[in-house]
Amino acid sequence: MATRRTPAGTRYSDIAERLERALRGGVYRPGARLPSVRSLCRTWTASITTVVAAYRLLERRGLVEARAQSGHYALVPGAPEPVVERTRLVPTDVSLGQLALLVMKDSRDPRLAPFGPAMPDPELLPNRELRRILAAVARSGAGLDAYGVPPGLDVLRTAVARRAAAIGCPLRADGIVTTAGGLEALTLALRATCRAGQTVAIESPMYYGLLQSIEALGLRVIEIPGHPRYGISLEVLREALDEHPIAAVVAMPAGSSPLGSRSGEESTRELVELLTARQVPLIEDDVLGDLALDGVRQPPAKAFDRAGLVLWCSSLSKTAAPGLRVGWIAAGRFQAAVEHLQFTNAVGPSPLNQLVAAGLLEGGLYERVLRRTRSVYAARTIDMAEAVLASFPSGTRVTRPSVGFSLWVELPPTADAQTIYAAALRDGIALTPGPLFSAKLRYRHALRLCASRWGDTWRPALQRLGKLVARR
Amino acid sequence: MATRRTPAGTRYSDIAERLERALRGGVYRPGARLPSVRSLCRTWTASITTVVAAYRLLERRGLVEARAQSGHYALVPGAPEPVVERTRLVPTDVSLGQLALLVMKDSRDPRLAPFGPAMPDPELLPNRELRRILAAVARSGAGLDAYGVPPGLDVLRTAVARRAAAIGCPLRADGIVTTAGGLEALTLALRATCRAGQTVAIESPMYYGLLQSIEALGLRVIEIPGHPRYGISLEVLREALDEHPIAAVVAMPAGSSPLGSRSGEESTRELVELLTARQVPLIEDDVLGDLALDGVRQPPAKAFDRAGLVLWCSSLSKTAAPGLRVGWIAAGRFQAAVEHLQFTNAVGPSPLNQLVAAGLLEGGLYERVLRRTRSVYAARTIDMAEAVLASFPSGTRVTRPSVGFSLWVELPPTADAQTIYAAALRDGIALTPGPLFSAKLRYRHALRLCASRWGDTWRPALQRLGKLVARR
Repeated sequence: MATRRTPAGTRYSDIAERLERALRGGVYRPGARLPSVRSLCRTWTASITTVVAAYRLLERRGLVEARAQSGHYALVPGAPEPVVERTRLVPTDVSLGQLALLVMKDSRDPRLAPFGPAMPDPELLPNRELRRILAAVARSGAGLDAYGVPPGLDVLRTAVARRAAAIGCPLRADGIVTTAGGLEALTLALRATCRAGQTVAIESPMYYGLLQSIEALGLRVIEIPGHPRYGISLEVLREALDEHPIAAVVAMPAGSSPLGSRSGEESTRELVELLTARQVPLIEDDVLGDLALDGVRQPPAKAFDRAGLVLWCSSLSKTAAPGLRVGWIAAGRFQAAVEHLQFTNAVGPSPLNQLVAAGLLEGGLYERVLRRTRSVYAARTIDMAEAVLASFPSGTRVTRPSVGFSLWVELPPTADAQTIYAAALRDGIALTPGPLFSAKLRYRHALRLCASRWGDTWRPALQRLGKLVARR
Repeated sequence: MATRRTPAGTRYSDIAERLERALRGGVYRPGARLPSVRSLCRTWTASITTVVAAYRLLERRGLVEARAQSGHYALVPGAPEPVVERTRLVPTDVSLGQLALLVMKDSRDPRLAPFGPAMPDPELLPNRELRRILAAVARSGAGLDAYGVPPGLDVLRTAVARRAAAIGCPLRADGIVTTAGGLEALTLALRATCRAGQTVAIESPMYYGLLQSIEALGLRVIEIPGHPRYGISLEVLREALDEHPIAAVVAMPAGSSPLGSRSGEESTRELVELLTARQVPLIEDDVLGDLALDGVRQPPAKAFDRAGLVLWCSSLSKTAAPGLRVGWIAAGRFQAAVEHLQFTNAVGPSPLNQLVAAGLLEGGLYERVLRRTRSVYAARTIDMAEAVLASFPSGTRVTRPSVGFSLWVELPPTADAQTIYAAALRDGIALTPGPLFSAKLRYRHALRLCASRWGDTWRPALQRLGKLVARR
């Protein structure tokens, strides 16, 4: 499995693969110290560079953790994680109805246990600082007396370009179009690359907002399995590309939702190369990439794009300001089409919101917010995952996300997510049923739980949910 | 002509028609006093109620003006207004390319004479008050920490419902969905009522943003001529409905762009009845309705909707805050579809902008802004229209709008609007070429001029434009 993701036969990837097998086989329990670099050099007659590269690869995959002055430690938890199986690669129409909107509406009820929509913890958001920025914009009087015309305000585009450079993806400001949030960016990307009736290949499970957008645009879908650690399966994607005309691919290599995976740089580069060779656009949903829970922000696929075929879409909604509705897209050769479609759709995002977003990105506030929240979410996701395993029936699997604040929970096969969703709601608990994350309504025995606000307050609710699952 | 717009054979409409013929025939010059009610009662052996009703009809059509204690005065200017002729009623694909976005971008250049995009005069906008509202929102801390989920914030929906009631269109707050501006509302309306390949009948000339949206959605178009005083031709519309399957009709009965017409209540009611009888949805673009230059706000078509078939779309962008990007739609039986499509397109408009908009609508500020701006625009449009007639070659026709701040200028038939657009731009003058307002690229010898900032500063530029037109 691992070798298909690294240049075959490279020395360090072989070593990484063997270590990974040992880790997954339970040779090293979570928290255990792994062999030192020096001892591995002896064992494998390899250079220090090679062994360090192998450890780096495992780090990027979230399997080991490097501690300063101390060595490498196993991160793989003992309990198995969910596995997304492949289905037949047949394009299907999407038919989610209006469940997603209902789930989103239901879940804004403050009385419910907040495991529903994937929203950041309001307590962790920089609300005071945003109010200050907003007040400054109000004093300046800018932002209300003129339309925001695509590609958007220069000040924000420059700030986004600087941020992109900081995460290993140098872009020019004039290659960026600001949008009204991440979903607008993704919808524009779909509209710029596909026409109704065409097929897109998407990582699965997939954020339901995007599935709904695909449905509304009349596109067909092939689902490519994701993996909680490695992201989209390049093997299955290659097969799909061989067998079907695919207008575009949607993937989340630097941070997936709901699985919380991070594909690693090698795999991401390979994904870009695979699609470039076939001239298929890659729509990159990178809304979660900045929420790398170990602080190691993987560069987006856009960083490896030489052909202008990657449409990088991101936003501030999961990290700093859900209510601001500001995102962006770097659309490469599709930029003119994106600007045009945005203009025809709703003229362009409000300059007011763009000014506040620029204020957030400038001056280091955004970076401070990320530092503050990443570690909190890292602790909460791990703790909630353990609580799930403790409260839910045996056979339950749960992810330990590398990015974001969602858990993907695979229940025993007899469970029905939609029945559980309805029963949980009656019991004061919000959650998102698995089928929402598939165009084919798969994942009938899976749930997504949002861990962003996890804490002791919500422990009794999770225990009730566990019993409720057990009864079904 | 007039009789098809009023219940045939009613006494007051007969009288109105005769008076209108006299007015248009030049019997009463603009500014002349018309016969008193009392004398007309004698002449026509009619009741006072009947004659008053006839004068009211002429007032609503912008043909006469009632002055307190003094009587009725002729408003019809001597110079003829443009006439939109019908073409063959064949559906066509839209093909505007990206000219509209270029025009919009070009025209933001502050060095250009501001006759280009139809934007309110920034000097007349309530910027100080909006800053105060914004600062209050900033202090409250609301609006940034949560998504805005369709149908939008209750506080804004309630404010919109109150405003609707005030203009003769009582609606419940829960029948309103807030949007990111008027164009998003219109795009959602199109998507909720039509599918790619279907045909919409639209009033022509038509705001190019909507044409671009229609093009991007893959819809076909039949253009129904508008009239600078009476709005969409019901006669031609009826014929089009007889001859073609029409998925929806887009019209602007309470205030059209770019012609500046107002159809009158009778005609609007007839439009709704015509479409209701055939179960065809009416997408009502009412973005300009509040800018009735004589202060007489005609109720939107939605006021006459008993079947839930009218989708009323409006916004604050032309009246108070272009940069705020807040609009709304009352979609009748299509509301669930609209909410769903909005959610899939970009989740929903920012709560921040919605709170500012609610603050604007509450407490009378919006009404004060309308009162202040209507009379200014009334004076500017009339003055600029006269300046056009004085500077442009003979044979030029220009509208005297009943709503809004745009002039529609019909040049002599040899003129080419796109050549003139390019030459004017080189000479520091922004304008919008006529063909942008037609899916069929008609109006090759027409221009739209924005009069919102008209004043002596810009007189030399308009004179240069006149000479430029004469040379072509």
